[in-house]
Amino acid sequence: MSYPTAAPSQGRAATSAQAATQARAAAPALAALPLPERALLLRGLSHALGENAAPLAAIAEDETRLGMERLRSEIRRTQAQLQMFADVIEAGAFLDVVIDPPDPSAQPAPRPDIRRMLVPLGPIAVFSASNFPFAFSVLGGDTASALAAGCPVVVKAHEGHPRLSDLAGELAAEILPAGVLTVVHGREEGRRLVTDPAIRAVGFTGSTSGGRALFDLANSRPDPIPFYGELGSLNPVVVTRAACRARGTDIVREYIASVALGQGQFCTKPGLLFLPADHALHARLRQEITAVPPAPLLGLWISAAYHATLEQLATHPAVRPLHLTHKPDDPRTSTPALLTTSAKSLRTHPELLRECFGPASLIVTYTATEDLLETLQALPAGLTATVHGQEPEDEALAQRLTATMQAGRLIWNGWPTGVAVTAAMHHGGPWPATTSPLHTSVGNRAIGRWMRPVAYQNMPEGLLPAPLRRANPWNVPQQVVGSRPIPDGKI
Amino acid sequence: MSYPTAAPSQGRAATSAQAATQARAAAPALAALPLPERALLLRGLSHALGENAAPLAAIAEDETRLGMERLRSEIRRTQAQLQMFADVIEAGAFLDVVIDPPDPSAQPAPRPDIRRMLVPLGPIAVFSASNFPFAFSVLGGDTASALAAGCPVVVKAHEGHPRLSDLAGELAAEILPAGVLTVVHGREEGRRLVTDPAIRAVGFTGSTSGGRALFDLANSRPDPIPFYGELGSLNPVVVTRAACRARGTDIVREYIASVALGQGQFCTKPGLLFLPADHALHARLRQEITAVPPAPLLGLWISAAYHATLEQLATHPAVRPLHLTHKPDDPRTSTPALLTTSAKSLRTHPELLRECFGPASLIVTYTATEDLLETLQALPAGLTATVHGQEPEDEALAQRLTATMQAGRLIWNGWPTGVAVTAAMHHGGPWPATTSPLHTSVGNRAIGRWMRPVAYQNMPEGLLPAPLRRANPWNVPQQVVGSRPIPDGKI
Repeated sequence: MSYPTAAPSQGRAATSAQAATQARAAAPALAALPLPERALLLRGLSHALGENAAPLAAIAEDETRLGMERLRSEIRRTQAQLQMFADVIEAGAFLDVVIDPPDPSAQPAPRPDIRRMLVPLGPIAVFSASNFPFAFSVLGGDTASALAAGCPVVVKAHEGHPRLSDLAGELAAEILPAGVLTVVHGREEGRRLVTDPAIRAVGFTGSTSGGRALFDLANSRPDPIPFYGELGSLNPVVVTRAACRARGTDIVREYIASVALGQGQFCTKPGLLFLPADHALHARLRQEITAVPPAPLLGLWISAAYHATLEQLATHPAVRPLHLTHKPDDPRTSTPALLTTSAKSLRTHPELLRECFGPASLIVTYTATEDLLETLQALPAGLTATVHGQEPEDEALAQRLTATMQAGRLIWNGWPTGVAVTAAMHHGGPWPATTSPLHTSVGNRAIGRWMRPVAYQNMPEGLLPAPLRRANPWNVPQQVVGSRPIPDGKI
Repeated sequence: MSYPTAAPSQGRAATSAQAATQARAAAPALAALPLPERALLLRGLSHALGENAAPLAAIAEDETRLGMERLRSEIRRTQAQLQMFADVIEAGAFLDVVIDPPDPSAQPAPRPDIRRMLVPLGPIAVFSASNFPFAFSVLGGDTASALAAGCPVVVKAHEGHPRLSDLAGELAAEILPAGVLTVVHGREEGRRLVTDPAIRAVGFTGSTSGGRALFDLANSRPDPIPFYGELGSLNPVVVTRAACRARGTDIVREYIASVALGQGQFCTKPGLLFLPADHALHARLRQEITAVPPAPLLGLWISAAYHATLEQLATHPAVRPLHLTHKPDDPRTSTPALLTTSAKSLRTHPELLRECFGPASLIVTYTATEDLLETLQALPAGLTATVHGQEPEDEALAQRLTATMQAGRLIWNGWPTGVAVTAAMHHGGPWPATTSPLHTSVGNRAIGRWMRPVAYQNMPEGLLPAPLRRANPWNVPQQVVGSRPIPDGKI
């Protein structure tokens, strides 16, 4: 795919180097902005999204075919994310101010006054996602959290919605100071962005292979930088024998709804459903998946990858198709599919453990509990892991299941799609779910990826940043800790 | 250097693979231990250090030649660190429990109950440091914080104090459950440790080159893991014209004391002192450095590196020696040294920006303020940056200086050596000071390196970890957040 190289519009740069240089120039003033003013910028972006929802959704529909209802709803979610981060920075707790009062009588040397807070890392590169043209794109969660942290952002637009990305960048340019948010296009510019000296960290949402390549690039820099990649996930769902008996039909209906939501184009789509081998739900499963209407996928490149992966899985000797739709005339249209295999086969064929991005899922049948647990132990870590069980009889079993599955979010009697944007949410997980197990890309705490601590020792009031001053002019929470004296702590 | 391959003693393993496997086996029980019991283990280690201080210090002195007074004091600091982390885990706030109550009336779908806490990452590899045989070694800060987080530890002993490391490992083995702390020896075993599948993160204190090599190794794994390396630092100290005039003699005395402390074998040793070009302190500087008694360095490999680096710097055409001691008869003995260059030369010769581990420092003379600022801008980020100035006349200048210098800790009218072990301390910084700008290796927050968040969605009470239960049986701080409702947040 090629992009015009004409003079960039407002909010867009022809090269990553230009964008990164502009971001570096804009960084000090953005970092110095009082928190209420920084919050106003985020609220301004939210307002602009709302004011321009009609043209934004129309362009997004043209580019992504996600449907107007979903896109309108995603715009509202994206607005709410921006407002949430405005709330977060106004509250001030995200600065994590901690103060150790001095102790002039400490032995063998007086203990100094030490005050610590978080400061912005500097310009951030954000790689936007194909499947969330708003919520994980130009004005999405990575951008909102980075701006909230006080960091300028250069967004690498996704190839799937370039015009939408430019329009979002133009809207942002009307609100933000110059250089604070710039959009660039093209894979090569994206790679250059990751190695640009001005860029201090990277946020990425996308495939494991693409994310790994950029992660390696970030670490290969002379000065390596943090790379936060949200990659793939299988999102296993385990149905206990008791739950299968008690609620099998409901579980199947909800499962297919979760698999088919957004044509399965979610990182939290349940890719594996574990059922007892003697389940009697085959007809029900076929009935529900057959009822899923075919619909266009995000783009031809997505549907090509989907159909290729599906074919590899479906023709695997250890896999049996439960339902395969005929290949549609329009190559962009999805073909919802269900495959099945045994737990033992999954253990012996790790090549089956791959994400199939789109409306397909693999049903894995297990015999004894040990068969199930042994297979769960062999799964890669994921963004989510789910158990459907019955209380109280399944409690001991569920304890073992949740202790075995490695994931960033553990769900009971629910479904992994639908990531609530809240303070307690964790959308992350150990590799290969993400490149950074300590961090989340959704919820309040996403801001923590873009800041680093600085301790100020014996600084006079006038030299302290406002949040650390004794007078506390910004009125932020200051945690004053009377640390236990450390003998000879001055070594 | 070679190590005996006889049957390992208690607390020591012949190979990294054995140690890592033992650590993996020990991980679940350690993670499940109630916090008071986990704290007791740390207090037990502190007690064992105190009880065995005499033999420990004797072996340490034989191996490191740091002097009995310093070593006794370092043992007390190491005990206090263990106790501090015992306090931290007993308080429970480190688990960072956040709870979003459910909202059954939320639109378009009810919002689930979400509860998040931090859980241990799993087995940790700790590379101990040459210059802190206690505080940054087998039972040092990395180990204490990892155990406090609930992670078993495999320590790669430093080649400079192998017998001390084994004794510390044996003491630990008497207190900790099997596999929770194991010591291994040798560079090759260290490299194997970083790529062992059981190891979930690495802590490292040492040289930039050694740290970078292991960082690259950790990132090259099929499953990359977090690598927390505390590397080198130049720790620039800027003396303003006014401070030089008002307190020049005192500053010189304190500067040389800081350079010579522990024979300059600290990562916070001031490696660069910026003085006005017209300073009249040459005689004073020579007098103070001449008074520093020669003393043995940590080992022959340290003194060889020290003398080689010193010679390269001292014979550089842009550098003038202010004081060079004659090379001593004993090759392990230090030769305290002061060199000088101009700010302009430092800018044009980046090869001068290298750490010289030992009692040497480079005095950099500046002319105008712009000359100073331009040079500070060219410095690599460090663990610390210090300004000596006069209030109130230097306030505007000091604002510009502290805004220019990139460091984890900014110090006013003090010295970087002496890292207080407290809640507000930050011992870290952007690359090349560390491999991970978000984290500290000293102070309470060092525990955060070894934990990852997990969110529990709609989990029944019996399946929740104790800290997340509604009944709060461990009585830990639970932050209940009433999140702003996100419209259509369930996409």
